Amino acid sequence: MGRVLNFSAGPACLPESVMKAAAEEMPDYRGLGLSVMEMSHRSKAFNEIIQETEEGLRRLAGIPEEYAVLFLQGGASLQFAMAPMNLARNGKADYLITGVWAQKAHEEAARYLDVHVALTGEREGFTRIPNMTGLSFRADADYVHLCLNNTIFGTRYAVLPATGDIPLVADLSSCILSEPLDVPRFGLIYAGAQKNMGIAGLTVVIIRKDLIREDLPSQVPLMLRYQTHCKAASLYNTPPVYAIYILGKIIQWIEGLGGLGVMAKINLQKATLLYDHLDQSRLFKGIAHRDSRSLMNVAFTTGNAALDTDFVQRAQEAGLIGLKGHRLAGGIRASLYNAMPFEGVKELVDLMSAYEKERAG
Amino acid sequence: MGRVLNFSAGPACLPESVMKAAAEEMPDYRGLGLSVMEMSHRSKAFNEIIQETEEGLRRLAGIPEEYAVLFLQGGASLQFAMAPMNLARNGKADYLITGVWAQKAHEEAARYLDVHVALTGEREGFTRIPNMTGLSFRADADYVHLCLNNTIFGTRYAVLPATGDIPLVADLSSCILSEPLDVPRFGLIYAGAQKNMGIAGLTVVIIRKDLIREDLPSQVPLMLRYQTHCKAASLYNTPPVYAIYILGKIIQWIEGLGGLGVMAKINLQKATLLYDHLDQSRLFKGIAHRDSRSLMNVAFTTGNAALDTDFVQRAQEAGLIGLKGHRLAGGIRASLYNAMPFEGVKELVDLMSAYEKERAG
Repeated sequence: MGRVLNFSAGPACLPESVMKAAAEEMPDYRGLGLSVMEMSHRSKAFNEIIQETEEGLRRLAGIPEEYAVLFLQGGASLQFAMAPMNLARNGKADYLITGVWAQKAHEEAARYLDVHVALTGEREGFTRIPNMTGLSFRADADYVHLCLNNTIFGTRYAVLPATGDIPLVADLSSCILSEPLDVPRFGLIYAGAQKNMGIAGLTVVIIRKDLIREDLPSQVPLMLRYQTHCKAASLYNTPPVYAIYILGKIIQWIEGLGGLGVMAKINLQKATLLYDHLDQSRLFKGIAHRDSRSLMNVAFTTGNAALDTDFVQRAQEAGLIGLKGHRLAGGIRASLYNAMPFEGVKELVDLMSAYEKERAG
Repeated sequence: MGRVLNFSAGPACLPESVMKAAAEEMPDYRGLGLSVMEMSHRSKAFNEIIQETEEGLRRLAGIPEEYAVLFLQGGASLQFAMAPMNLARNGKADYLITGVWAQKAHEEAARYLDVHVALTGEREGFTRIPNMTGLSFRADADYVHLCLNNTIFGTRYAVLPATGDIPLVADLSSCILSEPLDVPRFGLIYAGAQKNMGIAGLTVVIIRKDLIREDLPSQVPLMLRYQTHCKAASLYNTPPVYAIYILGKIIQWIEGLGGLGVMAKINLQKATLLYDHLDQSRLFKGIAHRDSRSLMNVAFTTGNAALDTDFVQRAQEAGLIGLKGHRLAGGIRASLYNAMPFEGVKELVDLMSAYEKERAG
């Protein structure tokens, strides 16, 4: 078949132009006679790639000089351990739990720290970001942790909590580069690349340099120290060379569109189209509360598991794939990451309309 | 220019046919309408890829059922921490130090365990594997660790030490799949993929299942537990999807050649051609002792740093790249991994001859 519309939650679709450019350059990068995949991470050509990628990311996301940008491995799940191991001073951290991944981050931190749940959306089944009025944190907490966009039920923070002088640590795996980023609000940002930044196997860390400690307890693994990777400019050992290259191409693509402001506008249009459709539908209903709706992951259901499955199947036959909801949420989920074009969402909405009419008729 | 001959120590050259097949399939994998890079790790198509890759590796390397095969991230450097964290029972391990990477593994293990140096080649500048006559290990050591092939000075073990019932843990990053592998001799094998198994960002772990503990201390990070990845069949979180796919292609390529026996024969021919040339040369001398010569990394020198640099430069101009020695060894290093064809080594030797004649004339 032709190119499918891939609504997967990640790994996810890549921009078609990025894919084409990468495929063309694959056997021979710019006439150098080898692929980026074959390049020594110490070579001049790869050094240019990694430097341009870092500079591009700094420019695109407005990352100030006092922040380090690290290209790591292991996914956000490894950051669930690295953040507490590296940031502990008083040995305390406060967690906001708005979904399964935030919960996992909290569970992991509990191995190393005295963790406190400052907020939880568990009673509402993680379908909304709880009201933050009166929310407070322990004054001696080393950091406050949250997951900005929650992929499973499709929620996101409309505003960030005020943490005062306490560094805010945030998992941005499923929303980074989808809109402008106010880096100075954060102490540490981390994100897996496989949603909005390219391919699986790369984790980007943006950390305020004063939070990178040299005097960690000796039991903290060398590879789990931000210091190790910061000092070596992400080349302490072999980095995921090809994934860094693809991230560079993604950055160029977003810059070509006009930057994160334009990207956000397009993403809002896409999400609005789908949510507006859900709000008028008699068959499909959105799962997340309106005040907490994610622009990246739209979870919905007919309220009937068999019907949800049937719709997902029908969509797949029509070339719209990856729409099955996460097993914890059930139903249907459309991930609308940067690379999903507006026309793709339009096709989904059209298919939903047709399906609804067919059922009603 | 045309395709260069890439003698890099890793990331390294890929087989040309693998590269071509991957480039062709890149935008559209087998008519599914998407790239492997875009596939959900929970999708049917990727599940087939990862299963076929594991089965292929088991078949090719003769990995018995009682061993688990894990596809991880973080490189061998992360295994330097994972091995001691996971295998400690008595809290003791014995290390054989035959190079810089083995030394780093030892230093990392010292964070967690009482480590003992059973053997070291440091006095000989790591240019040979020390004599193992009379070598013994602590009876209550949890494991014995070695690095089978040492990339920097180009040495390898001609025979494995006898460790009796003590599990042998080995870093095979730079020699895995270069020759038949006697898996039952090892308790744990680990290797970065970027030399003989494809591209950077994937670490393969082969571990005897009875060594995978469930009862680790709570401070061992979830992501650093073999148990986490074994239980989830390497899909606890998003794995490096594309690197696993490339490994699958590499396995097929080796099987197409006739398997590891044939691969070893070709590798021996390549290394013999270069070592024989070194042994008769009046200009170039091999760095490693004859009894310890690596078949994968051949380090040599003219004895004159400026001349070494000049030769590396000349080679580069002729399309033979990545020949600069590691900064700790200096000189010249030719890595002859599986994907380097015999003809490539022939070209190198011809260039060395011509260079030598030119200097003598």
